[in-house]
Amino acid sequence: MSGTDHQAQDDWGGPQPVMVLVGPQMGENIGAAARGMLNFGLEHMRLVAPRDGWPNPAATATASGAARVLDKVGVFDTTAGAIGDMDYVYATTARPRDMTTRVVTPEQAMGEARALIADGKRVGVLFGAERAGLENADIALANAIVTVPVNPGFASLNLAQCVLLTAYEWRRQSEEGVIEAPEIPQASQIEVEKLYTHFEERLEVAGFFFPETKAASMKLHLRNMLSRMPLTPQDVQIFHGMLRQFVRWKTRG
Amino acid sequence: MSGTDHQAQDDWGGPQPVMVLVGPQMGENIGAAARGMLNFGLEHMRLVAPRDGWPNPAATATASGAARVLDKVGVFDTTAGAIGDMDYVYATTARPRDMTTRVVTPEQAMGEARALIADGKRVGVLFGAERAGLENADIALANAIVTVPVNPGFASLNLAQCVLLTAYEWRRQSEEGVIEAPEIPQASQIEVEKLYTHFEERLEVAGFFFPETKAASMKLHLRNMLSRMPLTPQDVQIFHGMLRQFVRWKTRG
Repeated sequence: MSGTDHQAQDDWGGPQPVMVLVGPQMGENIGAAARGMLNFGLEHMRLVAPRDGWPNPAATATASGAARVLDKVGVFDTTAGAIGDMDYVYATTARPRDMTTRVVTPEQAMGEARALIADGKRVGVLFGAERAGLENADIALANAIVTVPVNPGFASLNLAQCVLLTAYEWRRQSEEGVIEAPEIPQASQIEVEKLYTHFEERLEVAGFFFPETKAASMKLHLRNMLSRMPLTPQDVQIFHGMLRQFVRWKTRG
Repeated sequence: MSGTDHQAQDDWGGPQPVMVLVGPQMGENIGAAARGMLNFGLEHMRLVAPRDGWPNPAATATASGAARVLDKVGVFDTTAGAIGDMDYVYATTARPRDMTTRVVTPEQAMGEARALIADGKRVGVLFGAERAGLENADIALANAIVTVPVNPGFASLNLAQCVLLTAYEWRRQSEEGVIEAPEIPQASQIEVEKLYTHFEERLEVAGFFFPETKAASMKLHLRNMLSRMPLTPQDVQIFHGMLRQFVRWKTRG
């Protein structure tokens, strides 16, 4: 969604980043994450395909005094759906080996989030499931990666701890100088997602994803590339226009 | 003790602050605190009068991979004993009403600790028992109070979380806390220029630059867009591949 529908401030819940738990397993961890958020004033959580469905009594029991975070939780089937209305998305993960997405610390991420949110943008942070973390397909949807600077000899942060540290960084920087927001208009997640889909459709028809065995990794790279690019809404329209034009060219025969 | 016995560096364990748990109850929490410490590279824990004695199998089980922190733990009968060889001591507690001790954030405390330790001083941080926290008699032994800037409407940090945040702050402010910018390979100017030329040629043939009066500004935007993008050499090849594929698609008829 591109900056036009932000008046739905009540639904969104105010100028805060949203913590998005992707495929969480134990309800206790969802509840503990909610507590960690509320400790530092964050109230907006979304869940993608929670293993045990929703609502989850174990989550409610653990959340205890932070139950109001869970009362407002949004539940989605897919990560793409959960971030569809966001302008900028971070994915928390250890430094990935085979991707070229920008990597920042929680400190940097929450500093940037403050600036973006002050500029009216919607920001989300993705957290993976307890053991496996985020999959590459989810990371490819994000604009940047957040990596907690843990001891490489012992890096065992759990889901709730990761959320806690992110929320702590949000609040820690609350009274400090705000970094100036970038002035370049950014295409929203949903615009980029639609652009990716358009690329994929056209390239599929044109026979680009060949050989078959490489198709999945080519698509992942393409999606990741589009997420990484600082695309403006106008850039997105230009790419759409190009893709449509190649179809016209083809069908003109 | 004031700075006279610092040659016993091996026993002390190196230039780090020591986390001192005063009257901890659950072994699980001691183990979780050890994990939180080691996640951020802290290895030196002391216990004052742990409720269930020491060693504690529940602590060891929870610590798991961080057992080496527990192996080296020092156990004391009194808080005064545990901090006897330290030069500067912080007490973590909510902001007290009736004391005049200096109050700092974890960020400030660990920043100061770095400076003190670099100057050869020994620094400790006191953490109270799970429910009651530190008693005033313990706080009175400290040089300064550390208060985590929690949401006053929901301030429920547990012992292990408090230790985790303190350890995080220690590491965040170190060189290890800085995430090195990943070396994302950048396409060269000449590669980007060739890509632009390829785009222009193909789009010209496909009739994209229409109407004529807008062609120049469309080309300018396209060139500017490609220059703005953080394109890797691989990204450039992908775009070349796409453009070639649309030609094959067209000529397949």
